[in-house]
Amino acid sequence: MHVLVIGAAGMIGRKLTQRLASDGRLGERRVTQATLYDVVPAPVPAGASFPIGVEVGDLPAPGETDRLMAGRPEVVFNLAAIVSGEAEEDFDKGYRINLDGMRNLLDSIRAAGHAPRLVFASSLAVFGAPFPAAIPDDYHLTPLTSYGTQKAIGELLLADYTRKSFVDGVGLRLPTICVRPGNPNKAASGFFSSILREPLAGQEAVLPVGDDVRHWFASPRAAVGFLVHAASLDARILGPRRSITMPGVTATIGEMIAALRKVAGDEVAARIRRVRDPFIEEIVAGWPRKFTTQRALELGFTAERSVEDIIRIHIDDELDGQIA
Amino acid sequence: MHVLVIGAAGMIGRKLTQRLASDGRLGERRVTQATLYDVVPAPVPAGASFPIGVEVGDLPAPGETDRLMAGRPEVVFNLAAIVSGEAEEDFDKGYRINLDGMRNLLDSIRAAGHAPRLVFASSLAVFGAPFPAAIPDDYHLTPLTSYGTQKAIGELLLADYTRKSFVDGVGLRLPTICVRPGNPNKAASGFFSSILREPLAGQEAVLPVGDDVRHWFASPRAAVGFLVHAASLDARILGPRRSITMPGVTATIGEMIAALRKVAGDEVAARIRRVRDPFIEEIVAGWPRKFTTQRALELGFTAERSVEDIIRIHIDDELDGQIA
Repeated sequence: MHVLVIGAAGMIGRKLTQRLASDGRLGERRVTQATLYDVVPAPVPAGASFPIGVEVGDLPAPGETDRLMAGRPEVVFNLAAIVSGEAEEDFDKGYRINLDGMRNLLDSIRAAGHAPRLVFASSLAVFGAPFPAAIPDDYHLTPLTSYGTQKAIGELLLADYTRKSFVDGVGLRLPTICVRPGNPNKAASGFFSSILREPLAGQEAVLPVGDDVRHWFASPRAAVGFLVHAASLDARILGPRRSITMPGVTATIGEMIAALRKVAGDEVAARIRRVRDPFIEEIVAGWPRKFTTQRALELGFTAERSVEDIIRIHIDDELDGQIA
Repeated sequence: MHVLVIGAAGMIGRKLTQRLASDGRLGERRVTQATLYDVVPAPVPAGASFPIGVEVGDLPAPGETDRLMAGRPEVVFNLAAIVSGEAEEDFDKGYRINLDGMRNLLDSIRAAGHAPRLVFASSLAVFGAPFPAAIPDDYHLTPLTSYGTQKAIGELLLADYTRKSFVDGVGLRLPTICVRPGNPNKAASGFFSSILREPLAGQEAVLPVGDDVRHWFASPRAAVGFLVHAASLDARILGPRRSITMPGVTATIGEMIAALRKVAGDEVAARIRRVRDPFIEEIVAGWPRKFTTQRALELGFTAERSVEDIIRIHIDDELDGQIA
């Protein structure tokens, strides 16, 4: 089976290709070829039993998605995105990559004619406040950012092209990924990872919001698990509603710090410095806190059960088991 | 105030321009100029106190929406659409007019820079079965047709461009319009109008579904009222959720026939012939039956209270008060 990963150089894309290389299969089927596509060359994981091609390009450029579909991949992951902050700052760029890129991909898939499985990385950003206490699977899409709008449109296109049998699509609304490895980034959500990542690495982290802020999380390992499960799922049972809110852990900042203290001790938890930032507080106030995710659980998607699990996965996967 | 009506040659477009000509105003403001745009020349209503220009063109063609916005209309109605059946048969044409046309319009409005009020005619087709008994205002958008998908995407774009202050958008999810004047059309929903219209005109009508089928209706006069109200509404109170399900009358076929009998007598009601059509029955089974429309009612949108009202409006507006 030929697998195409669009957005393969990103954090989730790299972890997904590592997992494919290590498993050698997707569900029941053996991977015989992979193509990694991004705006920069994606790293090729070691130890794969199948050939891996690396392609570089600009997804919405004319002919680009046709070129990618010429290899007739049987599974396509679309992880390419201009992220929330950048899509908000650069309106045209966000629509070009997140909407035109997705639509071109769907049209090229339709033209290719073999209706591959397309796993589309959507986002909680398709939802916008005000919210009920726990957001049900049938809650309406009212994004409050251009990024969320573009993802919601991607979900609608995915469902319609699937209904017409042009593609076999599954959309996943990923939780906020925590703990993100690497350097702190400037996303408004960055502190959710940094208050765990930096203390565990012996560094100070700044917490810009109150301890009562609640949000929805899953580890990078869980996110890769969602993608792999979505690629091999019998999607006929989904019916026409092809995008699914992924399971996760709901936790307040206070609960996250308590979990950090439990796993790594008081000294590590003391590396968090509280500096309230009203700008970030206001943004975060509009974010979802908890989902029911009944459909995802029935379909066999699994996430962590607690922030402790999320922290331990970070220590295992990124820190070789060592706390600084 | 300059008013631009896109899709002005359609049934609702013609009734809207007649209303504008007769009122001479939209809410508090006087209409000083109107432009009627469609793929065919829209009829110019008699008796207007302001100049009316007629433009013909292909909405998504390059430069077309820029040309329309060069007149700097302060209110724009976008009623242009490839309807449900045709959008389902001709996938590319539906996306071209319903999605690209709307997106081009929004981009030209953004480029014009004066953020006019845009009233967008959306549809109940943004919803798809299964439904709760009464569909609430926060029910999710899961269209089951390409037309519904294109309208749902239009709603998302309208909200995002409004949030960015590029436009001042209001989207209206119109009920099934009943009684549509004119000849029977081939839409699956056509029988809802024809079982009232044809008997009132002395002709036989065919009813393809059972008496227990329930749906959601408003008259053409109510639809024009929604558009006019939306054009002059203080939209700040809408917040970020800019599309609203319009009020209507929920009625079964049995209730519609009883109302026809009450208004026009047994002889007229006896002109309905029952010929079940399993194909139409299956389509209609996926349609919504009832909405709560709490937001619309709070915002001052009003519809008929009963099918009897709807029938009497048809007799007044289309039949000069006469039943055949």
